[in-house]
Amino acid sequence: MTIEGAIGVFDSGIGGLTVLRTLRKSLPEESFVYLGDTARVPYGNKSPETVLRFSRENVAFLMQQGVKFVVVACNTASAEAVPVLQEEFPVPIVGVLEPGVRAALKATENNRIGVIGTAGTIRSDAYQKRIRELNPKVKVTARACPLFVPLVEEGWTDSDVTRMVATTYLDDLRDEGIDALVLGCTHYPLLRDVIGRVMGDSVTLVDSAVETAREVRRALEADAMLRSGGTPDLSIYLTDVTPNFTEVGERILGDKIRDVRLLAV
Amino acid sequence: MTIEGAIGVFDSGIGGLTVLRTLRKSLPEESFVYLGDTARVPYGNKSPETVLRFSRENVAFLMQQGVKFVVVACNTASAEAVPVLQEEFPVPIVGVLEPGVRAALKATENNRIGVIGTAGTIRSDAYQKRIRELNPKVKVTARACPLFVPLVEEGWTDSDVTRMVATTYLDDLRDEGIDALVLGCTHYPLLRDVIGRVMGDSVTLVDSAVETAREVRRALEADAMLRSGGTPDLSIYLTDVTPNFTEVGERILGDKIRDVRLLAV
Repeated sequence: MTIEGAIGVFDSGIGGLTVLRTLRKSLPEESFVYLGDTARVPYGNKSPETVLRFSRENVAFLMQQGVKFVVVACNTASAEAVPVLQEEFPVPIVGVLEPGVRAALKATENNRIGVIGTAGTIRSDAYQKRIRELNPKVKVTARACPLFVPLVEEGWTDSDVTRMVATTYLDDLRDEGIDALVLGCTHYPLLRDVIGRVMGDSVTLVDSAVETAREVRRALEADAMLRSGGTPDLSIYLTDVTPNFTEVGERILGDKIRDVRLLAV
Repeated sequence: MTIEGAIGVFDSGIGGLTVLRTLRKSLPEESFVYLGDTARVPYGNKSPETVLRFSRENVAFLMQQGVKFVVVACNTASAEAVPVLQEEFPVPIVGVLEPGVRAALKATENNRIGVIGTAGTIRSDAYQKRIRELNPKVKVTARACPLFVPLVEEGWTDSDVTRMVATTYLDDLRDEGIDALVLGCTHYPLLRDVIGRVMGDSVTLVDSAVETAREVRRALEADAMLRSGGTPDLSIYLTDVTPNFTEVGERILGDKIRDVRLLAV
């Protein structure tokens, strides 16, 4: 683990490229290795044991690449695996949960926070528990939104169907009077407009990526592991390469993708 | 491979239990081994290479269980892997595609057939090609319906959202004047009512499971491998066991599920 080592990022698929994009903006001199477990995506409807097993394999692979730091971009893995991974691996690991929680606590004024995510993330109760640990006065309302990911992947980010689904999912949260909503899944920021319209202007939508990037910078600075100068590198590994990956990936990453390597799992 | 051996059935997940249910009804004296690859579900949005790799692993596992016959219940694997699997493995293998195609050709009177399925199934062009091979006069219209599986898994089999999604997906097929529609995914028969209402009474909905069960019986008879008497056995293996599997599985299978074994992949 040297200062020249890359920052490893893994996600269940390609949604985590939104997190990678924010990380690269905030840490422009760092190299990155991204691993998307596209052969086994999604994680959100699988058991905690399986999510932990896959996550372990992902971190082990990233460590083989000599990374100096690991970011778990997947919310389900952040909720269900990060504490165990932190104990098991000799590399600093952060998930998107803790930064998302802190951003939500900063944003709320009425102490009513909503959390949306996959079935696995919400069932794990990890967001809810952590928020209450940091501020027992906060009332947390959580809701699984399993159709949001397939709607984004279908490209229906602004359709009547998506608005109707969002209304069905979010009505209770609105009735609870929350003023901060954690978008607890990498895909959800792509539905920001629809979600914002259903929730109204008084609700702050919390995207964990920005806060996560800040946390990574702080942690690297504290360990004197922040790289400066040199040409940063980007490697992308996927466990399944679908025909249209480059097109979709470049749109999410906001940059050219030159080289994708297949990792068989 | 003995006459006492079980019939192996695999699917990307638990949707194939609809096929297993029909097979058990039609072959009540046979034993079955079911393998659901729930850790890597779905297959429909993955590349042909990955679907083939997973399918090979599934057949290899079933052969280790001493099965005398393999049924591929997953449409995506049927479309993308069955021909290769048939060449590679020394056991009779049938998918749901061929029986579905034959049932559709029997059902159509105006030679206009529609096919709906996952992105992978439709992209493979396997249904379309096979229908045209058997009857070049037939006009085939195909449509991927990626949101149908998540809608079924969310339990929204009869909601306004599902009706709106179905209308969006199926409008073109209706305009084409098809009179037979292949439900090319194990989950779709669970949306039969909504799909039927959008398509109208003049369109026959083809569920491959029934025709597949007939084909399996014919093949076993032809090889004198049909079992008679004895107590049939059912083993279920999953690559991931989610908390609510037994409840959901029993509903789909229409029978008690006594024992589920975990197979780590």
